[in-house]
Amino acid sequence: MAAALVANGGATAVKSQNTGRYAAVYSEVQNSRLDHPLPLPSVLRNSFKVVDGPPSSAAGNPDEIAKLFPCLFGQPSATLVPANSSDNSSGQGLKIGVVLSGGQAPGGHNVISGIYDYLQDHCKGSTLYGFKGGPAGIMKCKYVVLTSEYIYPYRNQGGFDMICSGRDKIETPDQFKQAQETAVKLDLDGLVVIGGDDSNTNACLLAENFRSKNLKTRVIGCPKTIDGDLKCKEVPTSFGFDTACKIYAEMIGNVMIDARSTGKYYHFVRLMGRAASHITLECALQTHPNVTLIGEEVAAKKQTLKNVTDYIADVICKRAELGFNYGVILIPEGLIDFIPEVQQLIAELNEILAHDVVDEAGVWKKKLTPQSLQLFDFLPPAIQDQLMLERDPHGNVQVAKIETEKMLIQMVETELEVRKQGAAYKVQFKGQSHFFGYEGRCGLPSNFDATYCYALGYGAGALLQSGKTGLISSVGNLAAPVAEWTVGGTALTSLMDVERRHGKFKPVIKKAMVELDGAPFKKFVSMREEWALKNRYLNPGPIQFVGPASDKVNHTLLLELGAQV
Amino acid sequence: MAAALVANGGATAVKSQNTGRYAAVYSEVQNSRLDHPLPLPSVLRNSFKVVDGPPSSAAGNPDEIAKLFPCLFGQPSATLVPANSSDNSSGQGLKIGVVLSGGQAPGGHNVISGIYDYLQDHCKGSTLYGFKGGPAGIMKCKYVVLTSEYIYPYRNQGGFDMICSGRDKIETPDQFKQAQETAVKLDLDGLVVIGGDDSNTNACLLAENFRSKNLKTRVIGCPKTIDGDLKCKEVPTSFGFDTACKIYAEMIGNVMIDARSTGKYYHFVRLMGRAASHITLECALQTHPNVTLIGEEVAAKKQTLKNVTDYIADVICKRAELGFNYGVILIPEGLIDFIPEVQQLIAELNEILAHDVVDEAGVWKKKLTPQSLQLFDFLPPAIQDQLMLERDPHGNVQVAKIETEKMLIQMVETELEVRKQGAAYKVQFKGQSHFFGYEGRCGLPSNFDATYCYALGYGAGALLQSGKTGLISSVGNLAAPVAEWTVGGTALTSLMDVERRHGKFKPVIKKAMVELDGAPFKKFVSMREEWALKNRYLNPGPIQFVGPASDKVNHTLLLELGAQV
Repeated sequence: MAAALVANGGATAVKSQNTGRYAAVYSEVQNSRLDHPLPLPSVLRNSFKVVDGPPSSAAGNPDEIAKLFPCLFGQPSATLVPANSSDNSSGQGLKIGVVLSGGQAPGGHNVISGIYDYLQDHCKGSTLYGFKGGPAGIMKCKYVVLTSEYIYPYRNQGGFDMICSGRDKIETPDQFKQAQETAVKLDLDGLVVIGGDDSNTNACLLAENFRSKNLKTRVIGCPKTIDGDLKCKEVPTSFGFDTACKIYAEMIGNVMIDARSTGKYYHFVRLMGRAASHITLECALQTHPNVTLIGEEVAAKKQTLKNVTDYIADVICKRAELGFNYGVILIPEGLIDFIPEVQQLIAELNEILAHDVVDEAGVWKKKLTPQSLQLFDFLPPAIQDQLMLERDPHGNVQVAKIETEKMLIQMVETELEVRKQGAAYKVQFKGQSHFFGYEGRCGLPSNFDATYCYALGYGAGALLQSGKTGLISSVGNLAAPVAEWTVGGTALTSLMDVERRHGKFKPVIKKAMVELDGAPFKKFVSMREEWALKNRYLNPGPIQFVGPASDKVNHTLLLELGAQV
Repeated sequence: MAAALVANGGATAVKSQNTGRYAAVYSEVQNSRLDHPLPLPSVLRNSFKVVDGPPSSAAGNPDEIAKLFPCLFGQPSATLVPANSSDNSSGQGLKIGVVLSGGQAPGGHNVISGIYDYLQDHCKGSTLYGFKGGPAGIMKCKYVVLTSEYIYPYRNQGGFDMICSGRDKIETPDQFKQAQETAVKLDLDGLVVIGGDDSNTNACLLAENFRSKNLKTRVIGCPKTIDGDLKCKEVPTSFGFDTACKIYAEMIGNVMIDARSTGKYYHFVRLMGRAASHITLECALQTHPNVTLIGEEVAAKKQTLKNVTDYIADVICKRAELGFNYGVILIPEGLIDFIPEVQQLIAELNEILAHDVVDEAGVWKKKLTPQSLQLFDFLPPAIQDQLMLERDPHGNVQVAKIETEKMLIQMVETELEVRKQGAAYKVQFKGQSHFFGYEGRCGLPSNFDATYCYALGYGAGALLQSGKTGLISSVGNLAAPVAEWTVGGTALTSLMDVERRHGKFKPVIKKAMVELDGAPFKKFVSMREEWALKNRYLNPGPIQFVGPASDKVNHTLLLELGAQV
């Protein structure tokens, strides 16, 4: 072990042997995670070879994808299978870069550890470069050489602070040129891009670009996002989703017990997760709230804000009849983006605010269509303000910043006031708002995420060594014991479709939304009525690293894999 | 064991053997806690006798306290000491009531379990009545008979849902009469009141009242509050504080890693805790944030809102010079109540709003003193609204509801805008607000709280059996192994002082505020400058029930007990 642990008051500092400086100050639990053993799938523990599958196509519009990726389109996915010879154990040293792209997700550090350990185990004399601050680090050639000592304090730790992340994209010809220059300068054999749907699309464009310029640099992606919306048959889940959901579910479970103990609050909990409602659905399956809004269902049923308000008010009234004036309601961050009338209003607002002055007297409102005007006036004033004021650098409404939970509390309150007139029973309603987001992105990875990420990274190393490019590291069979997990790489082009933007086709990996005929949603639907009226609250408790539930895997993944939960 | 565990999908249901109905649906971690063994102090495990100390006085104004408690004033505190005979093992059956009073705190169920087990172990044939919904349950004689089977599913579980709680007080002659009627009707030998400072004051008044009426019913208090402000030499901590702080510290730790990974947010975290800043101080000691505001210090230094804003802005500017445009700032819920000028403004607003109509044009503002008017205009509009609109049933400003974290973000933003003019370095500031509160009140109790509460309850049983009344259950020597913990009862009158209210003296147990010359605050002061500029973030991680850190005790308690942390 390349680092020593030194007692430092209540905490312990991880001291670098080379520099003698404290790299970080750690709590007892953080420390205990450093040497947490990570099992590898058995195929990675023994001799293996990389076997190609049949030629691949695209998720949609294969002709356009073929045009956008002339070098890579159609290439097969790859699977690691046991081999007799040990051809993977004696490779020559490689120069590999790694970059973290986009928002944090628990486990990123373990992907890097996995790559590093693969190189140590199989390609002696390799160098691993960590590009700093996301893709900008590639373009500016800002990096750190990752050593055993450098990596050690981050093993099984949350966050992306080992090399940090960034949201820049490598898009323009100039930017591609910069990336090429870095690849050449560092003599890179490969690059691992750890990111979400956009970042993996970018990784594929980079792979294509390097190949087209006859650079030797291969590019492998890794599926990262707590939102859980980067997945497909070959990539059953993105890392970080498991941990984030468990952290949110712990807090939801606590708030549920609080609701039941106090008997007088309705807790409206908005959950991070951008467009898709996977996090909200998973938290519902883990905790059994009284109401759960799933954006994809709201959109499919073309519901209005009034419909959503009525649904919540209905449950509250039925519970009041049963004597329960408390409850817990889960709301996905992206909810209002799923409501057609709100999308329409936001589109109109973006247009108006881009071109017109907003006058105090409200003359600007006349530019709204009658339906949007009616909706705007229906919204609580605080939400009107947020729609007008919170805008991103492009001038667009920042949907993620709108406090939907507060909006719904006010709208439900108003609706219940109306219903109170002449009601046979007394409805008491006190709403309490919560937003759970940042707390979940950087937690210590669950045992599942720690192990999954390590396999993703270790597998990415194997793919690079075997000369593969344009694949996303794919670890499967996740409902089975780790030893039986499958390892391989999926052609990124096979996950792609095109979107028309500014008159051009752009390749995109489609976000995986909650499938209304998928097993997790169906399970939820089969139980939600019982959860609404009877109190079936479940408190998963804090994530445990040893003992009971420490090796539990999230419901969504297990249900999608056909396992019984 | 009186209950059976039955598998039920992912969760497990605790099934009552008598009724065959599911009492609750539990997660794996909840389940694993049910049979968590609770060690008892050795004095409680063997034969003991109850020894009286010297006569007691009061915390202040003993003459007035003596008048208010003619029967109880001066009575000694009691200590349990080992005895040769086993006179405590063969007592006759008792009829005991228990009530939960006020806000939830993790561990309340274990106090009840402790009382129950004491009665089972030492007073065969006893009956334990759980009054439902707080003190109102006593007055209305609403109760449930607590059996082994009834209690089992709540062992080591968070929340107060076993018998629920309430905020009613037994205050008027009529209410005391109702309580007497219940005591007589149920033939109660004793009553345990689990609550905070107010509830324990109330418990003492009830003990005095029962004694003065020659009722046999004794009353024993137990120190409960996550806020940590009910403590003294004999009662080193209130239960729930340990768990709540650990839950908040987990989230703060996660947000810190997020801040360091992203490098672009200042997280302003407001923490529950009412008047005192103990929770904020403890969380700071556990996590090492860049800025921590301690209300008691702000008050002692007579700081203004501008001073507080400047202090935060100073740290942000210094960090910007060092290249850090991120950080974490902890704010106690009661902060603005500690700022003299704000107290003055709120007092004036309460007065004005009680008597005057608030006109749109703002004529009402002329009734403010010039200083308060200036402060009011200095506040961000959203906070002005909260001051005007969020009022409790008595018409007073609800300080706990004011989003101080958002207020400070806006005020710091404005201050930084001013400083930017001509600054040599670039300050980037993006504030992100958080409020951590309800999530911490009902979590699964930490091992410390679980054990501490069990001893408090078990000890309360012993005090009642020995005929004591008007004492608060006191478990001490908490820095030592559990076997060495001391057990006894402290005269509630000895904790009391008087306050003048409506022309009368009212007894009060003074809230224990953060002592500026106490060990926890001094430790914090010795480190805060380093924490401000260097990044010493510590992530305690989620509460563990087994393995590393699972038996850790909070810093505040250890430091106050003189232990090295």
